[in-house]
Amino acid sequence: MKDGQLAIGIAGLGTVGKQVAQAILNGALPGVVLSHVVVRDTAIDRGLDLAGVQVGTDLQELVAPDNSIDLVVELIGGENGPALDLVKSALSSGKSVVTANKAMLARHSIELATLADEKNQILAFEAAVAGGIPIIKTIREALAGNKVTRLSGILNGTCNFILSKMAETGGAFEEILAQAQSLGYAEADPSFDIEGIDAAQKLTLLAGLAFGITPDLTSVSLRGITDITARDISASSDFKCSIRLIAKAESMDGNANLWVGPALLRRSHPLYAIDGVTNAVVISAEPVGELMLQGPGAGGGATASAVLGDIADIAGGFGRSLFSQPVQTLVKAHSENAQLVSAWYLRFLLADTAGSMASVTQILAKNGVSIEEAIQRAPNVGETHLPVVFITHVTAESAVIKAIDEVKELSGIAADVLCLPVFTE
Amino acid sequence: MKDGQLAIGIAGLGTVGKQVAQAILNGALPGVVLSHVVVRDTAIDRGLDLAGVQVGTDLQELVAPDNSIDLVVELIGGENGPALDLVKSALSSGKSVVTANKAMLARHSIELATLADEKNQILAFEAAVAGGIPIIKTIREALAGNKVTRLSGILNGTCNFILSKMAETGGAFEEILAQAQSLGYAEADPSFDIEGIDAAQKLTLLAGLAFGITPDLTSVSLRGITDITARDISASSDFKCSIRLIAKAESMDGNANLWVGPALLRRSHPLYAIDGVTNAVVISAEPVGELMLQGPGAGGGATASAVLGDIADIAGGFGRSLFSQPVQTLVKAHSENAQLVSAWYLRFLLADTAGSMASVTQILAKNGVSIEEAIQRAPNVGETHLPVVFITHVTAESAVIKAIDEVKELSGIAADVLCLPVFTE
Repeated sequence: MKDGQLAIGIAGLGTVGKQVAQAILNGALPGVVLSHVVVRDTAIDRGLDLAGVQVGTDLQELVAPDNSIDLVVELIGGENGPALDLVKSALSSGKSVVTANKAMLARHSIELATLADEKNQILAFEAAVAGGIPIIKTIREALAGNKVTRLSGILNGTCNFILSKMAETGGAFEEILAQAQSLGYAEADPSFDIEGIDAAQKLTLLAGLAFGITPDLTSVSLRGITDITARDISASSDFKCSIRLIAKAESMDGNANLWVGPALLRRSHPLYAIDGVTNAVVISAEPVGELMLQGPGAGGGATASAVLGDIADIAGGFGRSLFSQPVQTLVKAHSENAQLVSAWYLRFLLADTAGSMASVTQILAKNGVSIEEAIQRAPNVGETHLPVVFITHVTAESAVIKAIDEVKELSGIAADVLCLPVFTE
Repeated sequence: MKDGQLAIGIAGLGTVGKQVAQAILNGALPGVVLSHVVVRDTAIDRGLDLAGVQVGTDLQELVAPDNSIDLVVELIGGENGPALDLVKSALSSGKSVVTANKAMLARHSIELATLADEKNQILAFEAAVAGGIPIIKTIREALAGNKVTRLSGILNGTCNFILSKMAETGGAFEEILAQAQSLGYAEADPSFDIEGIDAAQKLTLLAGLAFGITPDLTSVSLRGITDITARDISASSDFKCSIRLIAKAESMDGNANLWVGPALLRRSHPLYAIDGVTNAVVISAEPVGELMLQGPGAGGGATASAVLGDIADIAGGFGRSLFSQPVQTLVKAHSENAQLVSAWYLRFLLADTAGSMASVTQILAKNGVSIEEAIQRAPNVGETHLPVVFITHVTAESAVIKAIDEVKELSGIAADVLCLPVFTE
């Protein structure tokens, strides 16, 4: 830092970068000056007055050890490639880094945190999880004296938009996905979001902070939302529940279980009514009890807000090390323990013949799966199978899976069975 | 700090102090040691193992300039008196202070912030506003790059318990207040809470941080909940609204309007369904948009959590100056601007005679107060007046007040009129 000024270089002037640059040019962060920006094409007019700012196309300009930049803001994205190279080079050259890149961190956080600690630099990533919600700061700083026991959140705005819109309109998954794409809420290739991978990446970062678990996507019990039908949405509403993609990490025996998937939420659940692209996280911790934070999970303004908060912390000398604990002390999650014990939503399509319902309920009973509520509807026109939905009492996942496997072996039962957990809190 | 250890002294081992002490004794905050505690009566067994901790009854022991204490935790309470003396002496002796004392801060924050800055010490107060919710940290740090435009919160658990319980049970104010007292949610003398003073004190501290407004209780347009009747609760529910004590600060022309009072909240309002002793704050800011934080607003665990977070920040060298700006740059709120423009709930008791309804609606119309919804009910047995309730279209407060004054002059209209704003967001 020269004359008490923190000089920053921004890689990428997309929606987020433009807002970050504009705020700094406006003097939103005293003591912070915009020194460099690197973009793909310098000819594009971004409506920014960049007089006095070095504008280039070569990322190397940001990380030269002898330039005046103290902090590099990485907003180019991508799990590997130029973003990763840039962040590594910046840390190696003794520059701190602020990034919104969850994919890169979920994959490389150990290597990058080690490098940052070695070089005594800060690698800040508030923007990488839940957009404008200060979830990293809350877990790492505000709850420093707490023991977190559980995190439960809506971390993917695309899935939440699709599921809440399906409930609002009665539309089919594919139809609402197309709507989300046309609104810019889903990518042309939406798999990263709708398969739950994005939420799982964010969850591994939160679990790293809250439970000291090495971020590792393979430790997450992971399922997307692609097999949720309009019929399931309507049935969940008959049961006075909503369906949401939930990311959940629970401490267990000095370790933690990480789970991402669609679930039915009862009205008592704090995330029951979170609609649209909003994100929300419920933190259970001792001694505080239960906190909930909610806000915009994506978008230029929300992400820029988080990036600016990180820059302000670093400018004030308030940056923290990535996991708030030495990287070597992190432990691997025992994903084999990630067995849910909960109530379950079961949807079967049964042949419209005498005794099919009796066969299914017998199998459930035999496996100790007892039924709390059941709804059987007439089939839609042209369908030969009856949709039957159950909510079970609280049961171990293994028992439910075993029962479903046996049901699938019955002749005349359609293979199309859906099983989702039902969460009360 | 000696050997990199932060030595703390706690004044007061009540519900909060005990939990803070226990957490530190358990090693919840690495690098923090409990050096002294001062209590009224050392003979009481608090279930803490205080071996190695100096236990006394003299607050002076905590602030002696030559003792080993780096940080004093003030948990004795009270706007003036021993708490204020202790905090001043501690800062003067070069010790930082963590406090949960909103009453003291609301009155003396300028003097104390000035002293802390002078002595280069931290005065931290996360626990003073909204209990376990990290609202100070969020506004001051996470939103450092934002411009806050509005804060709107439920900051008093006692009032929120009473109002939500009245709705749940249909009970009268006095009855539910007595229940709150027996549950420990309201003091024997509840006026501080139910008159809105507690919420107003907290609001002035938030507005100090968010808008640079000098904390000053007289700048708050303030009203308590004592004239809310079971009839109003029931009418609000007929209008699909809840009634909550809302604390609101809105930026206006480089200044801010501060308002505390009961209001009807429509279902669209993010605070509509906040029940019981929970606190919640909605922050509107640019560029982030809207954030909401909710959690326990009081109680030993929630307050201890916030105190521990502050201690951790100071131990790590991450403490911030009280208002994040020099005290001299704070400005006085122009409370004269605090005119609400909103929809209004009006409740009249009208004489059960022909023409009384017509007289009232005429006066409203003459003053430009147009009616969106009206409900007239039969009087309760033994009552000679008809309850009539209206929700108006959005109107300036002055017009509504003028209309009410004219209605009160009508002969045969009971003087008992209630007027509350109706908030949509």
